[in-house]
Amino acid sequence: MKIPVVKNILSANDQVATENRTTFDQSGIFVLNLMASPGAGKTTFILATTDRLPEKLHPGVVEGDLASSIDADTISARGVPVVQINTGGGCHLDAPMIRSALPHLPLAELNLLFIENVGNLVCTANFDLGADLAVVVASVAEGHDKPYKYPGIFAVADVVILNKADLIEVFEFDVEFFRRGLEMVNPNVPCFILSCKTGDGVEAWVEWLFDVVGLG
Amino acid sequence: MKIPVVKNILSANDQVATENRTTFDQSGIFVLNLMASPGAGKTTFILATTDRLPEKLHPGVVEGDLASSIDADTISARGVPVVQINTGGGCHLDAPMIRSALPHLPLAELNLLFIENVGNLVCTANFDLGADLAVVVASVAEGHDKPYKYPGIFAVADVVILNKADLIEVFEFDVEFFRRGLEMVNPNVPCFILSCKTGDGVEAWVEWLFDVVGLG
Repeated sequence: MKIPVVKNILSANDQVATENRTTFDQSGIFVLNLMASPGAGKTTFILATTDRLPEKLHPGVVEGDLASSIDADTISARGVPVVQINTGGGCHLDAPMIRSALPHLPLAELNLLFIENVGNLVCTANFDLGADLAVVVASVAEGHDKPYKYPGIFAVADVVILNKADLIEVFEFDVEFFRRGLEMVNPNVPCFILSCKTGDGVEAWVEWLFDVVGLG
Repeated sequence: MKIPVVKNILSANDQVATENRTTFDQSGIFVLNLMASPGAGKTTFILATTDRLPEKLHPGVVEGDLASSIDADTISARGVPVVQINTGGGCHLDAPMIRSALPHLPLAELNLLFIENVGNLVCTANFDLGADLAVVVASVAEGHDKPYKYPGIFAVADVVILNKADLIEVFEFDVEFFRRGLEMVNPNVPCFILSCKTGDGVEAWVEWLFDVVGLG
């Protein structure tokens, strides 16, 4: 008797993530999932990026927070289409939340979507949202030991942003120690060191992103 | 027929938390559960506090991290008894982890125990460890909007520490906006604004703690 072996059973979340990915592909939208600690500067990073995008790219934003619409208000004020998800205490976004948010965005007008996840350097790493690019935003203010202490999220990153680079000296941040930790958990992952406050380094990131999106 | 109603069924975690609390009480140990974002300065805060403790207080530390023993090494180097818990990816400490750690500490020599939770401003709020005091450490570098965005953890705080106060101007941190958010979710919670780097404000916190411990 042959025993049936069922493979690739997707979790409920992963099923919906796959549906989201199909929706994004059909709409021609490239999607970034931004993950970071609280206060690493995700919203400022989105705005620093959208301010410098080539004309071909039309961004939208999904904002994830436990509560409030502070970040969505900031983004909306800059004229970028945005929808706020309040998780009501939930520690991460999941694929069904993203699916629920999509009808509130003008998808036909967009080709780039930033999903700002809940500020959480642990749980966000474990939920596929259907995005194309996992972006981990670390901040100099958090210290140079984060890849050693939170290896899981740095391991799933497709690209790492080290923000608040204007404060490297103030925080006595050891860039080489940070890089070694990153290399240990995710060899050869691209890392952009920049400051959304001064703008230094943001252009290089935007150029890289433009290449990755592939509309050049 | 009378239908039996069973009240106060404790979760597995809460049962162990109650046992931990009994252990701490019997050993005469006052316990702090430190919760914060990654990089808010929990370890530095513990050291700034232990450096200034009155002689009557004998501290120990339980260090919680997903991986590494970086913080435990730092604390051990200062001569404070410490045990490291690696959660192996888990996003918070729980009461059974604390119970497992206790045999590795010289409890009979201690009367003050700092539990440094995993850096996570969401999940840590939901797990009783058996501690006497829930301490939330926020950092100026994270921005003044955190009580609005992460109300759950600020709501459970018995005391809030606002660290890195030497950088209030650098980060254009609005103390009143922060305080209003805090007041909204947790009216009258004590809040100490201090800098573990310069030491400013740490004495006031230590004096308050000494009063709360009640060995004066």
